[in-house]
Amino acid sequence: MHLRSAILSLALVLALSASAPVQAREIQMQDAGPLPLPGEASAELRALLSVNPLLGFWKRPPPADASGWKALVAGQAAKTASHVEALARKLGVEVRQRRLAGVAVFELCPKEADPAFEGKVLLHLHGGGHVFNPGLAGAGEGVLMAHAGKVRVVSVDYRMPPDHPFPAALDDALAVYRDLLKRCPASRIGVFGASSGGGLALSLCLKLKAEKLPLPGAIAPCSPWSDMDRRGDSYFLNDGRDNVLVSWDPWLKASALLYARGRPLGDPLLSPVYGDVSGFPPALLLSGTRDLFLSNACRMHLRLRAAGVPAELVVFEGMSHVLYLYNPSMPEARTAFAELTAFFRRHLR
Amino acid sequence: MHLRSAILSLALVLALSASAPVQAREIQMQDAGPLPLPGEASAELRALLSVNPLLGFWKRPPPADASGWKALVAGQAAKTASHVEALARKLGVEVRQRRLAGVAVFELCPKEADPAFEGKVLLHLHGGGHVFNPGLAGAGEGVLMAHAGKVRVVSVDYRMPPDHPFPAALDDALAVYRDLLKRCPASRIGVFGASSGGGLALSLCLKLKAEKLPLPGAIAPCSPWSDMDRRGDSYFLNDGRDNVLVSWDPWLKASALLYARGRPLGDPLLSPVYGDVSGFPPALLLSGTRDLFLSNACRMHLRLRAAGVPAELVVFEGMSHVLYLYNPSMPEARTAFAELTAFFRRHLR
Repeated sequence: MHLRSAILSLALVLALSASAPVQAREIQMQDAGPLPLPGEASAELRALLSVNPLLGFWKRPPPADASGWKALVAGQAAKTASHVEALARKLGVEVRQRRLAGVAVFELCPKEADPAFEGKVLLHLHGGGHVFNPGLAGAGEGVLMAHAGKVRVVSVDYRMPPDHPFPAALDDALAVYRDLLKRCPASRIGVFGASSGGGLALSLCLKLKAEKLPLPGAIAPCSPWSDMDRRGDSYFLNDGRDNVLVSWDPWLKASALLYARGRPLGDPLLSPVYGDVSGFPPALLLSGTRDLFLSNACRMHLRLRAAGVPAELVVFEGMSHVLYLYNPSMPEARTAFAELTAFFRRHLR
Repeated sequence: MHLRSAILSLALVLALSASAPVQAREIQMQDAGPLPLPGEASAELRALLSVNPLLGFWKRPPPADASGWKALVAGQAAKTASHVEALARKLGVEVRQRRLAGVAVFELCPKEADPAFEGKVLLHLHGGGHVFNPGLAGAGEGVLMAHAGKVRVVSVDYRMPPDHPFPAALDDALAVYRDLLKRCPASRIGVFGASSGGGLALSLCLKLKAEKLPLPGAIAPCSPWSDMDRRGDSYFLNDGRDNVLVSWDPWLKASALLYARGRPLGDPLLSPVYGDVSGFPPALLLSGTRDLFLSNACRMHLRLRAAGVPAELVVFEGMSHVLYLYNPSMPEARTAFAELTAFFRRHLR
């Protein structure tokens, strides 16, 4: 077939005949050369984007065995925990270590509470690829949310691999949610989390449907790992351009396999984009133009809307994966937490 | 400064200390090799994506003078117009050529009208880089909307360069809008358009504010050319990956300069992302992960939300610039027009 016959005869916008059948084939990318920093992002975001890659350990191979993972995770967590502790102190967020239904949680209470959130609570599921950020290391996003939203947050220190792969994290999230339900109607509970935490928030809703429990009033899966099976355009488009996640290989793949322990990665409880999301509560999704998980956010957003769920998507200019968490004082971070706060204020009744 | 000291000490998600000052520099992109077709896009979309580039004339230099532009535009328009005519006939959309306030328009009346749109009208501003698609060639998107939404559409055949550069198009859109206002309250008028048409829809609202005229009830700037000054991450991220627009050079640049005729490209009436959008009506923006205008949509969306405007963004998986217009029967196109229809039903009162 002659190429011209497949090319619809018009300019810039608008071809209207049914497309001629064309043979699907890969697009040969141009070598576009160095990617300029996004001039319209804040100076703080550009500074973060200029570290290449942001997480130095991406250049090393993942650990070969369970003890290697444990040592790596513990080493990272110790450093992060001290940041979180300092952050909470600086922001005046009180951190109470507790157990709910036998699960370790951090209750995060802001210095000032917004009366609009009286009797309401946000359940936080932390990110870290289902593998990283045990203990206080996982609570940082929760501390930021408690402070920005002036809202009480319960951050779940869920169990993780290598000792506790799927479904331990989900079981723990479910147990804590059930416990909250004893004192708080579901419509007054919000669930949020970034990356794998966003994936868990979505999987938790699938699990709640299966258990015939009431769903939360609203969810904010931020740049969620909604597809662990590496399906999605941005896994390829933003490969090597997202300076946080960098690439599927080798760390995302290794983390996914460690968590799934043999379960197919496309299982809806691992990759909620394949789940039946009808009846889900209002959702807010965040992402960025350089996010390796951009498609994870966009596909999930479309799937929610197709099911009739009021779902909103915000895509930050020039942002790699969840960079708004890396410098909470930058304009994009303030916008992100303002969006989250306004969203939960609107939807928790 | 040692790189490690700038790398926040944690895994995948979450660094919380204030970012250490790092020297901003460009990111060295990897040569990622051929970009695979997006497996989660529809087969029809993948077929359109596999034509590289979709608009063959991108490989040729733009015309050197006015008569060259006129010949090119007329040749394209003749072919496109015959597509639009066939499309309208096939869909049973009646096309009435009229003049409103001295401006040529096409009134597009669907076979069936939805009672929800009784006494309401959508004003359509076509795309084509401010240069292409005169006459019926510009009305195709309007025909699709009239059919999908079962709603009356008035598509403006605004004047264009080389004879009529900025602000002729905007003046024409404004004149038609004023004329519609005589018979229809502003709250019952929606304005929509893709690409440069989306940019015009936004500029029209800026102009209406300046003229102290009532703003429309809702607007849908679909993948709007909101920044003609080539600022925005996706001009670079999706360079050579968007198989419709392909690249800023040479066609977008040439079209922008032809339209602006010496006016700075960052002027808000050319690049409405720099305008004061407070008081704008609810807005729906569409884009795609491969859209060269992804940042044009995302930045505009963020700017609208920052001004308190209820603005929604939908980003299609794997889609280049407005590809939903190229095969109206593909699933993504049905979703796009269903979103537009639902949006205008919700907001036009």
